[in-house]
Amino acid sequence: MDDALPSSSDDARSAAPLAHARTHRLSEPLALAMGGSLEGVEIAFETWGELSPARDNAILVCHALSGDSHAARHDDLDDPGWWEVVVGPGKAVDTSRFFVVCANVLGGCRGTTGPNSPHPRTGEIYGPDFPTITVRDMVETQRALLDHLGIDRLHAVIGGSLGGHQALQWAAAYPERAGRIVALATSPRLTEQAIAFDVVGRNAILRDPGYSGGHYAAAGAQPAVGLALARMLGHITYLSVDAMDAKFAATMEPRPDSASAFERKFSVGSYLAHQGERFVERFDANSYMTLSMAMDLFDLGATREALQASFARADSPWLVVSFSSDWLFPPFQSRAVVEALLPLGRDVTYCDVATECGHDAFLLEDDAPIYAELVRGFLAPDADAAPAARVGDATAASTADDTTPSRARGSAASNRARPRPPTPRIDYDHILRLLEPGSSVLDLGCGSGELLARLRAEGHGPLIGVEVSETAIVDCARRGLPVVHADIDQGLDAFADAQFDVVVLSQTLQAVGDVRRALREVARVGRRGIVSFSNVGYAAHRERLGREGRAPQPSDHDPHPWWGSPALRLFSILDFEELCDEMGLGIERRVALDRARGRVVEDDPNRLADLAIFVIRGSRSAQSADFVPFTKNPSAR
Amino acid sequence: MDDALPSSSDDARSAAPLAHARTHRLSEPLALAMGGSLEGVEIAFETWGELSPARDNAILVCHALSGDSHAARHDDLDDPGWWEVVVGPGKAVDTSRFFVVCANVLGGCRGTTGPNSPHPRTGEIYGPDFPTITVRDMVETQRALLDHLGIDRLHAVIGGSLGGHQALQWAAAYPERAGRIVALATSPRLTEQAIAFDVVGRNAILRDPGYSGGHYAAAGAQPAVGLALARMLGHITYLSVDAMDAKFAATMEPRPDSASAFERKFSVGSYLAHQGERFVERFDANSYMTLSMAMDLFDLGATREALQASFARADSPWLVVSFSSDWLFPPFQSRAVVEALLPLGRDVTYCDVATECGHDAFLLEDDAPIYAELVRGFLAPDADAAPAARVGDATAASTADDTTPSRARGSAASNRARPRPPTPRIDYDHILRLLEPGSSVLDLGCGSGELLARLRAEGHGPLIGVEVSETAIVDCARRGLPVVHADIDQGLDAFADAQFDVVVLSQTLQAVGDVRRALREVARVGRRGIVSFSNVGYAAHRERLGREGRAPQPSDHDPHPWWGSPALRLFSILDFEELCDEMGLGIERRVALDRARGRVVEDDPNRLADLAIFVIRGSRSAQSADFVPFTKNPSAR
Repeated sequence: MDDALPSSSDDARSAAPLAHARTHRLSEPLALAMGGSLEGVEIAFETWGELSPARDNAILVCHALSGDSHAARHDDLDDPGWWEVVVGPGKAVDTSRFFVVCANVLGGCRGTTGPNSPHPRTGEIYGPDFPTITVRDMVETQRALLDHLGIDRLHAVIGGSLGGHQALQWAAAYPERAGRIVALATSPRLTEQAIAFDVVGRNAILRDPGYSGGHYAAAGAQPAVGLALARMLGHITYLSVDAMDAKFAATMEPRPDSASAFERKFSVGSYLAHQGERFVERFDANSYMTLSMAMDLFDLGATREALQASFARADSPWLVVSFSSDWLFPPFQSRAVVEALLPLGRDVTYCDVATECGHDAFLLEDDAPIYAELVRGFLAPDADAAPAARVGDATAASTADDTTPSRARGSAASNRARPRPPTPRIDYDHILRLLEPGSSVLDLGCGSGELLARLRAEGHGPLIGVEVSETAIVDCARRGLPVVHADIDQGLDAFADAQFDVVVLSQTLQAVGDVRRALREVARVGRRGIVSFSNVGYAAHRERLGREGRAPQPSDHDPHPWWGSPALRLFSILDFEELCDEMGLGIERRVALDRARGRVVEDDPNRLADLAIFVIRGSRSAQSADFVPFTKNPSAR
Repeated sequence: MDDALPSSSDDARSAAPLAHARTHRLSEPLALAMGGSLEGVEIAFETWGELSPARDNAILVCHALSGDSHAARHDDLDDPGWWEVVVGPGKAVDTSRFFVVCANVLGGCRGTTGPNSPHPRTGEIYGPDFPTITVRDMVETQRALLDHLGIDRLHAVIGGSLGGHQALQWAAAYPERAGRIVALATSPRLTEQAIAFDVVGRNAILRDPGYSGGHYAAAGAQPAVGLALARMLGHITYLSVDAMDAKFAATMEPRPDSASAFERKFSVGSYLAHQGERFVERFDANSYMTLSMAMDLFDLGATREALQASFARADSPWLVVSFSSDWLFPPFQSRAVVEALLPLGRDVTYCDVATECGHDAFLLEDDAPIYAELVRGFLAPDADAAPAARVGDATAASTADDTTPSRARGSAASNRARPRPPTPRIDYDHILRLLEPGSSVLDLGCGSGELLARLRAEGHGPLIGVEVSETAIVDCARRGLPVVHADIDQGLDAFADAQFDVVVLSQTLQAVGDVRRALREVARVGRRGIVSFSNVGYAAHRERLGREGRAPQPSDHDPHPWWGSPALRLFSILDFEELCDEMGLGIERRVALDRARGRVVEDDPNRLADLAIFVIRGSRSAQSADFVPFTKNPSAR
């Protein structure tokens, strides 16, 4: 068994005072969101790196339930911090570039005022008399600390789990002070299931006779059993079912520790008992109850409207990251945040990292190549960054193999590398020419952001992409291009009607599951849609079938044989126009290309063009008066 | 809040003695699997219906952790039982047809000998001295009861959760006495996550001061807090995250009950506190620990080989049902059982019911139209039963919309009804003619079992289908045709090499995600494969593209336009032969059909046939000497 397994906090660390923590004492009483106030609040915090002369390079790192101010080591001799994976010189949160601040939360037990602190006037431990606090109060203390440090505006605020709650609360309460918002493995409110686990954990503490109504410090006892049970329960929820099965193989012997107060019949039981007992040594039960209650009370909204009200002023760029096997903060909760922000036109990047590591994933090395690189790119984008993923990844947006249930339990790696030869996308040249200056654009299946980068270079905006490949999303983040991890086949519900001047669907329609729905959404979300596709009516395709008796094989990005994956639809310019007509979609323009000859086709495009680009609109009444579709001119086929 | 919410046991029921329970006392001491023995074991049981003169209509119903012998009411005045949804006159387990027996499990606390029973010689309550028992011991007492009742062979044994463990144990220990095996929402062993929850629950009881080392009865106390905590935890695991969010809406007020010993700040907390407190009134803590430990110790094998050893003699027909949102007994555990049985050639029907009801689903009305109808059909099949689902459902086996993540969270209904006009399948006539007498056949995408039924009528066998539609699977079960819920795109790993004389893939290849993998699997699992598909080389298709410039639109079962779902591949006889050649697959025969003219095409089939049926083999060396593929005869195209 691996004692060093990181978890939402590292239980292997000592309970000794934190060597590098300083303390700031608030000069004013802290008015609490749920009523009442706290006098003489002290905040324990650590910093890394140097604050720039302009004071504009500060990043606030927020910790989770059982974390503290020690996010990373300060020197080689220092104890490791809870987020060594992410924070340090040259790491994603680069302490050689940024001034990083991490403070123990209000209500904690590692230096900041909490239930086991003495009341500043009476000198008595608060214990159960510590008031109910909220994430809002935590953020208030952080704001006061930043005032003290002379930081008006953060470069970014970042956190996972309860730390993510704090990041979201910053976005809600002090958006003007948060230059960027990074929320990992978190949610705008807990699921009822997560609250239920907290309720059981708190009840275990409350009903432990050692709790003594919360006055256990005075009684010289502590609710060790209750706190250990709560911690055991927490540990289960931080891991995934697969991670646990892998970790506690049936053949593994339980830890031989007859002195244990807990049942250790199974290896997993031995592990949990150990975690529970270690936690009791370093954590305070009232603090645990206080923080767990603050999480349960956290609620930025259960509906899209409520979330939009919470984030009404939060117009900084956002990075939201969820983890596929996180069942404590399920990905749908992160998507709810993203789907509230998108219709507001916010600059949002979202990725659901495919992993078996569960909620703890945001603390672990395993998935750092995705989530830490997203953070790195997002915090310090470089418009000229070279993509690591191939542009051809764009078509993955709707391939069947990305949506099969197997992926949920399969290797995450399969979604991360799809080497394909890059193909020049001359259709992009034509798409760019079709845009009016300063157009806002949604690029569906944006890949590593080639088109988006060209659009940005030409002054278009706002821009956003939709993509399914994690590595391509990392590429976009590196280039500072907002992109949302989504599958076109799941619809574009997150976007408002006519939100964009243009929605681009380039060489992707052949692979979507529901063509009509995709086109309806393109026409709904964009004032115009630009759809490009391979034309099966092209003479070479006709000849292949007609003379050779073999299936047409158009190249979309690169050659797919008929049996290739994904299953590709074949359709012609004529077919497409017929469908638009049937759906009541207006066609404003059509550009037909013969890519082999590198030219635009004017005459008989359904035979002479291998690629077509259509500009469509939601209403047929918008159809250009001078546009004559094939359906009305059947002689030219 | 709904007090009547059924769960793995119904807490609303009283702790009064069960009015209709009788007791059988074992004449011999019961030797226990883990060592030791129990004297004077008493078994409380109830029965419904009449045992037939041949004594061949008995069904043993096995209950879950907190259930008892009262599965259903005996008359209108009786209390409802825990499985009223399934057991009763005219219901799936039809008590007007079958003689139904349900006994309280060994170690329970509702009439059968358990920890709160008095030792037969000393008269003292066993308490913590009750021995560790296993599911095997439970089944031993049931076997003894059946001996007493004069039942040599059960028509079926059926159970869910811990009841499912008992059904599986019957299959392992007394396969010759179990005519049919029905295992719902269960597993051959617990996940480490499930064990972890049990460990926490047991620790809560063990460390409750009221437990008094298990001698709480003598001490006049009870570990009420620990037992309630364990039950709360159990309740969370019986529901899904979605079910809990739906049930405990944020606006719901907590139950006003200031007298509660547990925190009720949240509505879900109020619910759990209530469930915990009710449970303490009716259940015994040592019994809970005993049964929970029996579940954790249950282990029929972690590998396919180990499971096959456990079920080596269990050659009765099987029905295995899992529930998609059951995270306590995840569907992959049921599939592990199925995938162990299939290579042994067992008669297995499996369905993973799409539901948001979680583990409790097997007790609820919500999904009874699927799971109870599967049970009904499986217990009393009728070869002439008319299918409710359409035969065309067969193609659903690999459609994208059945494998998108949305389904996991979306409505289950979408997978239950796919009305399509039935189309005569003349290809079936030809497929039947291609078979040697008495062939074993695997039908991939079997729909409601039309081909399987015809195969059975002609004396072929063993037969098994693979299908994705739940309603089609119910139809197969009604007809007594074994069918496994699976997606061809997930592979056929469950089947052994050359397990079948023939594997049929009729009009399905156009929709699979990975054509080469599907063909490899067909050729691996079948000594022969029969693959039928629409030929895009058919003259009408060539003409449509060549002259009209429109995408070919072959009809597979019924017409799909180019934009229809699923995305259909287009390929010709020539394309298919080319791929077989490249893959090294031998082609033994080819039947080309012109369905419009109702005739077999001999000359120029790639132009004149709209449907082709190929008999393929895994090795090209098996190719018929007289078979001349198009690839070798390019003049005929």
